[in-house]
Amino acid sequence: MYNIAILGASGYTGAELIRLIAGHSSMKINALGGNSKAGQTMASVFPHLRHLDLPALVAADEIDFSQIDLCFCALPHKTSQEVISKLPSDLKVVDLSADFRLRDPAAYEKWYGNPHAALAQQAEAVYGLTEFYRDEIAAARLVAGTGCNAATGQFALRPLIAGGLIDLDDIILDLKCAVSGAGRALKENLLHAELSEGYHAYAVGGTHRHLGEFDQEFSALAGRPVTVQFTPHLIPANRGILATCYVKGDAQAIHHALQTAYASEPFIVVLPMGETPSTRHIRGSNFCHIGVTGDRIKGRTIVTAALDNLTKGSSGQALQNANLMLNIDETEGLMMAPLFP
Amino acid sequence: MYNIAILGASGYTGAELIRLIAGHSSMKINALGGNSKAGQTMASVFPHLRHLDLPALVAADEIDFSQIDLCFCALPHKTSQEVISKLPSDLKVVDLSADFRLRDPAAYEKWYGNPHAALAQQAEAVYGLTEFYRDEIAAARLVAGTGCNAATGQFALRPLIAGGLIDLDDIILDLKCAVSGAGRALKENLLHAELSEGYHAYAVGGTHRHLGEFDQEFSALAGRPVTVQFTPHLIPANRGILATCYVKGDAQAIHHALQTAYASEPFIVVLPMGETPSTRHIRGSNFCHIGVTGDRIKGRTIVTAALDNLTKGSSGQALQNANLMLNIDETEGLMMAPLFP
Amino acid sequence: MYNIAILGASGYTGAELIRLIAGHSSMKINALGGNSKAGQTMASVFPHLRHLDLPALVAADEIDFSQIDLCFCALPHKTSQEVISKLPSDLKVVDLSADFRLRDPAAYEKWYGNPHAALAQQAEAVYGLTEFYRDEIAAARLVAGTGCNAATGQFALRPLIAGGLIDLDDIILDLKCAVSGAGRALKENLLHAELSEGYHAYAVGGTHRHLGEFDQEFSALAGRPVTVQFTPHLIPANRGILATCYVKGDAQAIHHALQTAYASEPFIVVLPMGETPSTRHIRGSNFCHIGVTGDRIKGRTIVTAALDNLTKGSSGQALQNANLMLNIDETEGLMMAPLFP
Amino acid sequence: MYNIAILGASGYTGAELIRLIAGHSSMKINALGGNSKAGQTMASVFPHLRHLDLPALVAADEIDFSQIDLCFCALPHKTSQEVISKLPSDLKVVDLSADFRLRDPAAYEKWYGNPHAALAQQAEAVYGLTEFYRDEIAAARLVAGTGCNAATGQFALRPLIAGGLIDLDDIILDLKCAVSGAGRALKENLLHAELSEGYHAYAVGGTHRHLGEFDQEFSALAGRPVTVQFTPHLIPANRGILATCYVKGDAQAIHHALQTAYASEPFIVVLPMGETPSTRHIRGSNFCHIGVTGDRIKGRTIVTAALDNLTKGSSGQALQNANLMLNIDETEGLMMAPLFP
Repeated sequence: MYNIAILGASGYTGAELIRLIAGHSSMKINALGGNSKAGQTMASVFPHLRHLDLPALVAADEIDFSQIDLCFCALPHKTSQEVISKLPSDLKVVDLSADFRLRDPAAYEKWYGNPHAALAQQAEAVYGLTEFYRDEIAAARLVAGTGCNAATGQFALRPLIAGGLIDLDDIILDLKCAVSGAGRALKENLLHAELSEGYHAYAVGGTHRHLGEFDQEFSALAGRPVTVQFTPHLIPANRGILATCYVKGDAQAIHHALQTAYASEPFIVVLPMGETPSTRHIRGSNFCHIGVTGDRIKGRTIVTAALDNLTKGSSGQALQNANLMLNIDETEGLMMAPLFP
Repeated sequence: MYNIAILGASGYTGAELIRLIAGHSSMKINALGGNSKAGQTMASVFPHLRHLDLPALVAADEIDFSQIDLCFCALPHKTSQEVISKLPSDLKVVDLSADFRLRDPAAYEKWYGNPHAALAQQAEAVYGLTEFYRDEIAAARLVAGTGCNAATGQFALRPLIAGGLIDLDDIILDLKCAVSGAGRALKENLLHAELSEGYHAYAVGGTHRHLGEFDQEFSALAGRPVTVQFTPHLIPANRGILATCYVKGDAQAIHHALQTAYASEPFIVVLPMGETPSTRHIRGSNFCHIGVTGDRIKGRTIVTAALDNLTKGSSGQALQNANLMLNIDETEGLMMAPLFP
Repeated sequence: MYNIAILGASGYTGAELIRLIAGHSSMKINALGGNSKAGQTMASVFPHLRHLDLPALVAADEIDFSQIDLCFCALPHKTSQEVISKLPSDLKVVDLSADFRLRDPAAYEKWYGNPHAALAQQAEAVYGLTEFYRDEIAAARLVAGTGCNAATGQFALRPLIAGGLIDLDDIILDLKCAVSGAGRALKENLLHAELSEGYHAYAVGGTHRHLGEFDQEFSALAGRPVTVQFTPHLIPANRGILATCYVKGDAQAIHHALQTAYASEPFIVVLPMGETPSTRHIRGSNFCHIGVTGDRIKGRTIVTAALDNLTKGSSGQALQNANLMLNIDETEGLMMAPLFP
Repeated sequence: MYNIAILGASGYTGAELIRLIAGHSSMKINALGGNSKAGQTMASVFPHLRHLDLPALVAADEIDFSQIDLCFCALPHKTSQEVISKLPSDLKVVDLSADFRLRDPAAYEKWYGNPHAALAQQAEAVYGLTEFYRDEIAAARLVAGTGCNAATGQFALRPLIAGGLIDLDDIILDLKCAVSGAGRALKENLLHAELSEGYHAYAVGGTHRHLGEFDQEFSALAGRPVTVQFTPHLIPANRGILATCYVKGDAQAIHHALQTAYASEPFIVVLPMGETPSTRHIRGSNFCHIGVTGDRIKGRTIVTAALDNLTKGSSGQALQNANLMLNIDETEGLMMAPLFP
């Protein structure tokens, strides 16, 4: 039984980690950090977890990490790098924040607005897109969970870029994102009365921070700079990301490349040609569904991908990576079916 | 490994059974019946189950029941009794319809409007409220799953009636029910555009069929006729029932009775005095949360109970009963945490 | 054309007043107060009002009230009494807060926790339930808008209490309230991700402040103390209150009393016997729909009432009262049909 | 006072017409047709309209059209052409179906699958996009309301195509559509339990019928064939269309062209550069909000447009056209503010 700590357990990704680990055969939660709510029980912070026998929330510096085999860090950006830089340097860590996703410190500063405060850790961090960095993750001490939007777009597009199947200068990602991706933050636009009956685009024009990941990963894959268009939209639902990707390339070749790339992946499902995924069919699960349809304009293809931002987009991915790092079966604790309706 | 058949697999309770059994260590789904969609794959009927290796839907009479250890029957009322009366008489069956809940054929005809067509099976059926009929269920061949509203109200009230703690002539149940309880039926008032932004009472005045169960169970418990008031309301959410019960009795005594009654129950959680449950905190799980608060008027108490109509209210209960009937640990396949948010 | 000021224009009831007055033939908005957002345009605070030619938000003390014929005060409780006590003493004011609803200062302090700071104004304030205080409102300088829950319950019950038709010691109000009633406040439980898929009771046991209004009004009406049970529930919808009232009395007599009481009221609609109202059918309008059904238990009746908390429950009521105070047709600006779907 | 008939009054666009006309100063509803619900009152078909004094639903052939000044036809596609071909040939008609939108009978047959059955009427019909066909509409006997998606896309793009400001061979429209656009049809995917917590693309690849309108209108405007990509998505909300248009052209020039084109339009609001519209801010109104943002990739621009599919997208547009045809002020009955929250 591996001993697990979770820092940032009072947020949605922290709660999702607990939900998943509760069904894991060889992990046990020993410590829960949540500075702003230290002293509270999880039953009061997240009543849906009250049936579990969980430790109370404590401040991170009260945790004895010598007893911990792996620590999930579900803290806000910037806080995460400060905390992780002070953890024991041999402690296995899966970080869910944005702090260690970008390898280039200059790119980090460009997208996040401040110099990186934990360059040593950044240098050793492995990018946590499991299906494409499996070996590095298995050998890593520190894994950086990807952005949830960045994961969705990459599942749809990496095999096409790697295969040279699409025009690299004309890639458009139109994403529809559910609200839990914004976290448990008290913001006016996240109130039910504000959000529930409407939808809109945000961070329009190429300003969303997950573009840093797209630029890094797609350019590395192509061996040349790749700059995509990416427009997220906030949708009145709690879980789910749907990426609609407009590319120039042949639909059959694209479908074939995706089928081949994911043929043995347990969580990535490529739908039959012409079918389209829905966020409702992956909700609460670690699955990602991908669909391919050719447009009426020859040579253009629409690739759509759906996943649950809290599961495959963050906490599920994190657990999948932790399984690899601890040499546990990669799918352990992650095979639950989606919740529908 | 027990071989399982599910009849009525194209409805919500059928799909929920499949979701649960997919995580069960000693059950295997061998046959799925769904007459109106016979020939289709589950991936087309319920795409959220497409990752599972499931048999295609067939007509019920195509199934070889000699290979089946237990059959779940998730068919509509009235159809169920016709089908079950033709199944092998030694086949273990858990029925999720209303057909075998009422022991008195006259009561059945009163509430459902037609004479019962399977009196022999009705006579042997055991009422499936697990926590109160555990031994009978373990020994039963045919178990009748309870109504989802009936289960919620009984969890809140049975220990109070049994303990003689409340005025039996003044019990009011005001229920708030999510829409999946109405099934996958094509009705105008179940459309998203009709339902999503409003709510209303229905079956007002004591006409809801689940009253047959309340009458039967509460009267048996009290040893005298007990007639309750029960008003359900349709709420714009997909899963959940919240029962607000207004009773005349002492809050402390009531809270104590509920704590005692459910002290060793794995799925029934009595909250600390004065706390109130929410449907969002049991969503997708087999838990039932119960809260007790005394009113400002001395001698009156409000008992609230929340459960997921598709899980603890039907398919989860059914699986719990099947575990008992097959001598499996009662909680197997049912300990998943709720999905929140 | 009457000149109108609105204080507290950055909240939901303020915005609703603007929406309604925009369609009013003889009112013009001259000043909008909103201290915390002073200096901002309404287009930035409420983009849905951007097509209107509105003054920018200013601090309340910047407004020249000598030019104003009537001032709506949509400020938070407690702030309202401080502001109103400093307004010109001959300025007509419609207050939407709770500050002037309770006539007895001791009752105010009991329910709101602080001594009243504007006793002179409290003494002259008229309770703003239009249909029952029409003459006093027409003659008033200061009208106190009712609580939205208090209005709903009173529309259902006043004629029954006045008519001596029900048992005064056994009245239960189970209310289902939409989220906009909680205002635009940044609270965790009002976030979309928290609220949208679940529902729960709150202020259980007789602690909700609107009970002060029920006690005051029902007791005055009955000529003896009347103490009701009242349990509100928060429902995942934006607008609407549904009151389900459980009373002991004859359904036919009750239906007849309600029909008689509201026969010439433009906004109160008593449905045919046995029909039940829905919040979706009054959404965005000033109408209140009331239904009556007898229970299967003889002598018990369920009265349900539905209205829009932001319209008939607060801002619509406020405009209706202002029309009376300015001797305008009472229905002016208020006859728009509900928005469905 | 003009006498108005509405055929198809039992659907959502019919109900929306009634809602709008109820606030119109010079129209009176004389007849309501609804074959499948003939004989019913509007109070039973649409209880939110019960306060209005409306005629009961009748079969279309029972209506005496000699008394009618203008007839709205809100019938399903294909039915509409059959009914309209039999109406008096001098009766002014505003059709809300797709039957008279496409001028070329071959295009109609291509997109709708059947030969047109009312070619004479098709020949005289005027395309009802008010802002661009104002004079023709004012002089027309028969006006064809546009598709709601088609209207949204055209508001965003017509001035850019007319002005030669964008690459005509690379236009992508990604639309997010609320569910009322699908009408009151009993389809499984429109049920609340199916739709409410997820979203997906449909008619992917250029198969949606509104493409017939884009092709017709954009090609006519450009003087050469223009073929766009158009992918609609179904969003869990009741009202609203958000079009996200990806074009190649200069953002400043595009913003300027839109501002110029709509400078004197009462219903089309071009937001300041860089702001983005939301469907929640036009809900229930006849306004269309348009936003322009330049992408980080030079020479690419995102134009977003939001309107309410039932109002500006169909029934509001229809009333605007009827006002023109009857020589009434174009904005009469249409200036109500959006409903938010």
